[in-house]
Amino acid sequence: MQTAEKRLYTLWGELRDLSAASDLLEWDQEINMPAGGVAARGKVVSTLEGFKHRGLTSSELADVLDCCAEGAEPGSLLAAQVRRARLEVDRAAKVPQAVAQALAEARVTGLHAWRQARASADFSLFAPELKRMVDLRRQEAVAINPEGNAYDALLCEFEPGASEAALVPLFSGLRESLIPLVGSIVERGVEVDESPARGNFPASSQLKFGRSLAAAIGFDFKSGRLDESTHPFCIGINRGDVRMTWRYEADDFRAAVFGILHETGHGLYEQGLPEDLARTPAGSPVSLGIHESQSRLWENHVGRSRGFWRWAMPRYRDAFPAAPECDVEQIWALLHTVRPSLIRVEADEATYNLHVIARFEIERALFGGGLEVQDLPAAWDDIYAELLGVRPTDAANGVLQDIHWSQGMFGYFPTYTLGSMAAAQLFAAADQDLGNLEDAFAEGEFSPLLEWLRDRIHRHGSQYEAAELIEMATGKPLAPDDLLAYLRRTTEEVYGSLA
Amino acid sequence: MQTAEKRLYTLWGELRDLSAASDLLEWDQEINMPAGGVAARGKVVSTLEGFKHRGLTSSELADVLDCCAEGAEPGSLLAAQVRRARLEVDRAAKVPQAVAQALAEARVTGLHAWRQARASADFSLFAPELKRMVDLRRQEAVAINPEGNAYDALLCEFEPGASEAALVPLFSGLRESLIPLVGSIVERGVEVDESPARGNFPASSQLKFGRSLAAAIGFDFKSGRLDESTHPFCIGINRGDVRMTWRYEADDFRAAVFGILHETGHGLYEQGLPEDLARTPAGSPVSLGIHESQSRLWENHVGRSRGFWRWAMPRYRDAFPAAPECDVEQIWALLHTVRPSLIRVEADEATYNLHVIARFEIERALFGGGLEVQDLPAAWDDIYAELLGVRPTDAANGVLQDIHWSQGMFGYFPTYTLGSMAAAQLFAAADQDLGNLEDAFAEGEFSPLLEWLRDRIHRHGSQYEAAELIEMATGKPLAPDDLLAYLRRTTEEVYGSLA
Repeated sequence: MQTAEKRLYTLWGELRDLSAASDLLEWDQEINMPAGGVAARGKVVSTLEGFKHRGLTSSELADVLDCCAEGAEPGSLLAAQVRRARLEVDRAAKVPQAVAQALAEARVTGLHAWRQARASADFSLFAPELKRMVDLRRQEAVAINPEGNAYDALLCEFEPGASEAALVPLFSGLRESLIPLVGSIVERGVEVDESPARGNFPASSQLKFGRSLAAAIGFDFKSGRLDESTHPFCIGINRGDVRMTWRYEADDFRAAVFGILHETGHGLYEQGLPEDLARTPAGSPVSLGIHESQSRLWENHVGRSRGFWRWAMPRYRDAFPAAPECDVEQIWALLHTVRPSLIRVEADEATYNLHVIARFEIERALFGGGLEVQDLPAAWDDIYAELLGVRPTDAANGVLQDIHWSQGMFGYFPTYTLGSMAAAQLFAAADQDLGNLEDAFAEGEFSPLLEWLRDRIHRHGSQYEAAELIEMATGKPLAPDDLLAYLRRTTEEVYGSLA
Repeated sequence: MQTAEKRLYTLWGELRDLSAASDLLEWDQEINMPAGGVAARGKVVSTLEGFKHRGLTSSELADVLDCCAEGAEPGSLLAAQVRRARLEVDRAAKVPQAVAQALAEARVTGLHAWRQARASADFSLFAPELKRMVDLRRQEAVAINPEGNAYDALLCEFEPGASEAALVPLFSGLRESLIPLVGSIVERGVEVDESPARGNFPASSQLKFGRSLAAAIGFDFKSGRLDESTHPFCIGINRGDVRMTWRYEADDFRAAVFGILHETGHGLYEQGLPEDLARTPAGSPVSLGIHESQSRLWENHVGRSRGFWRWAMPRYRDAFPAAPECDVEQIWALLHTVRPSLIRVEADEATYNLHVIARFEIERALFGGGLEVQDLPAAWDDIYAELLGVRPTDAANGVLQDIHWSQGMFGYFPTYTLGSMAAAQLFAAADQDLGNLEDAFAEGEFSPLLEWLRDRIHRHGSQYEAAELIEMATGKPLAPDDLLAYLRRTTEEVYGSLA
C-alpha cells in the first residue's frame, strides 16, 4: 500500500514535470522565442505531450491507482489523490489517439484560419475548420461519455464535476436578473465621465505602478515574474515560479492596472498551492472556475473598491503626475459604469456575464441542440440582440471575436462566470468573517484577505471538487445571489435606484 | 530497412526534442527563472534526463540500430547516422544508473562546495566533493572503457574520437614553441599602451554595437536572441532558435565585443546545421572542439584582424563618441598583447593555450598518472610556474578558478585548444581558397567566409568525425602549425622579432 502510494507520486511527479516543461515552452513561445523557432518548437511540444499520454495510459499507473484505491479510506487524502489522478487518466485512456492527434493538428490549422477570417470579417473562411473541430470534439465527447451528455464531457475538461444540468439554473438566475438591470441602466441614459481615466500614461510608469500593486496584495516576485505580452496570461510552472504577463494602453491606465490585478489573482492562487502536495495529483488547482474566482476577486472586489482606491490614490498620483485630476469617487464611478457592447474582453463587470451566457447557450445548442456550424453567425447575432440588446455589425465583432473555438475550447467560457459568482460569494464570506475589508484595504492591509483565501481555497490544492470547496469556504452552495447583490449595489450607487 | 530507418528518425527525434526542452530549461534558468523556482526546476531537468536515458537504452532503439547497421552501405549517410547514434546509446548503456544518478547529485553539491571554497580561497572546502566527483568519473570511465584508457572515455564525451595518445603530440608541439615565444615577449619587457581600450562605454551602446557586429558577420536574429548573463554562452535549441548571451565591462569594450563575436561564432554554426538532418543523429554539431573552432575563428581571426577594424572603426566611433581617440593600428596592437597571467578566462590568445595544456596535464595525471585530489593544489601551482612562469597567490586564482571540475567536466578543457588549432587551420585554408580575406572584411564582406564555413563544416552536421572533417576541409590533418604561425606573426608585429 505504502509502496503503491509512493510509486503513484513518483509516476505523477514525472508527468507533472513534463507539464512544467510544456508550461515553460508555452510561456517562452509567447515571450522570447524567435520566429525561426516555430516549426521545431511544435515538434517539441507534441513530443512532450506524447510522453505524457503514454505515461497517463500506462498499465503501471493504472495498476498503482487500483492498488491505492483499494487501500484508501473514504474521505482520505489518498482517496482524493486517486480521484483526481483518474480524472486525467480516464480522459487520456478514453480518447482514441487518432482523435487526439487530429485535434492537435486542427488547433494549428484552426488558429490560422480563424486569424484570417477575423482579419477579413469573413466567417466562411473559418467555417470548414470550425466544423472539423466541432466534429472532432463531438467524437471526443462520445468517447468520454458514451451514454451521457456530450457537452458535459467538454465542460469537465476545464471544470471537473461540472454539468450542463447544474449550470442551467445558475446561469438562468443570473440572466433573469441581469437583463432588466442592464436594461434599466441603458434606459436611464446617464453618461459617466470617463475623462479621469484618460490621459498620457507612460508604459514604464504603468509597469512600475502595476508591479507595486501586485507586490502590495501579496505576489512574491522572488517566486514569479511579470512580462509584457499581447494577451495577458498567468502560468504557474510551479509554486516557486509563477509567470504573469501584462499589456497596456498608452492613454488609459485601466487595461494595465486591472489586467495585472487579474493575473495577480491567478498568481496568488498558484503561489499558495500546498507545497507538501507539489507534483501529486491533488496538488494542482481545482478547476478553471476556481482559478477565475481568484483573479476576479482581486481584480473586481478588491481592485475596484473604494477602500483600495483610498490607499492607492496617492500612489497613483505619484506614478502619473501628469494624469488628469481626479478623486476616489470619480475613479470609483468610472470603474463601475455599465454599457452593453459587442466585445467580451472589453465588457464591464455586469454585462460580461451576459457575453458568457450567450456563448454557453450557443455551445449547448452545438453539442446537444442540433445547431450546426453554418448557422452559428445568425444564432450569435440573435442571442446578442436578445441578451445585450446589441447586434454585431460584422463577424469580426460577432462570432469571430474569440480565439477559444479555434483551439477547440468548447466548455471553457462558462468557467468565467462560475469564477465571477464564486468570487462574489467568497468575498462576501470573507468580508463577514474578517469585518469590514474595505477599511483594511484603505490602510494597505491585504494580507488578512489573502490569508483567508490561502486557508479556505489555496492550501487545499485539488483535494475537493469545486462545488464542495465553495460550500466549505462560504457555508453555502455556489449561487448567483452574492454576485447579483454586488452588481446591484455598485450600479445603483452610480446610476441611482434601478428596476 | 526503410521502415527501420524511418523508425530510427522518429525515436531519435523524440530524444532530440527532450534535449531541446532541456536546453530551454537551462537557458531559462540562467536568464529568467525566479530564485523560488530552483528546487522544482531541478526535478524537471532530472525527469527529462530520465526519459532520455530510458529512450537511449530502450531495446527498440537498439534493435532499430542493429537493423539499420546491417542494411547500411559503408560510407553512406545511414552508416553515419548509426555510428553517431551509437556514440550516445553505448555511453548511456554502459554507465550504471547508480553512477549516473550519483554524478547528477554530485554536480549539485559540488557546485555549492566549489563556490564556497573559491569565495574563501580554501581548497579544503572543495576537496571532499572533488574527490567524490573524481572517484565517480573514474568508475564511469571504467564502465565505458573497461580495458582501455580511462581519460579517453572522458575526452570522448566532449570530443568523440579523441584520445590522449592523439592529443599528446599535438599539445607537445604547441607547448614547445609557445613557452619560448611567450618567454621572449616577457624578456622584451615592452609595454603596449592599453589606454585606447579603456574609457566609459555605456552598456546600451555596447549592446547595440555588439548586436550590429553579430548581424554583420551573418547571425540571423529572426532565428536567435542575445541576452545578458553573468557568463556568456550559446545554446542552439534548434537551428531556428539559437540563443547567445553576453556580458560587459563598463570601462573596457573588449569583454562585450569579443564575447559577442565568440558566441556568434558558435551561433553561426548552430544556424548553419543541415535542415534536412534536423532531429537525426547526424544533424548535431560534431564535437566541442569543432564548435570552439567556429567561435575562435570569428572572435580571433576575424574580430582581431586589421581588415575587420578598418571596417569597424567608423562604426565604433559612432557607437562610442566619448571613447578615447585611437586608430586601427593602436586597436590592433592592444588586441594582440601577450602577458602571462593566472586566470584562464582573462588570458590572451597566445598564453590561453598554455592554461589549457596545464589542465590537460593535470587531468591526465588524475585519471592515469596516480595524482590524487589532495595533491592537486601543489601540482597546479608547479605547472603554472613551469608553463607560464607565474605562481598563484592563493587557490582562488589557482586550482579553484574554473567551474568545470565541480561539474565533473574532466576532458572538456582540451577542446578549447583543439578549437584554437582548428580555427587557425580553417582560416588559413579559407584565406588561401578565397584570396585575401582581410580586404573583404575591410569592405564589410563576411559572407564569402561564412559560406565557405557553411560548405566545409556546418552543412555536414556530424556525418564525419572531427579529425576527418578538418582534413576534408583543409586538406591536411589537424596540427598546431597554423596556430603557431599566426601567433608568431601577430606577436612579432607587436613586439618585434622574437626567439
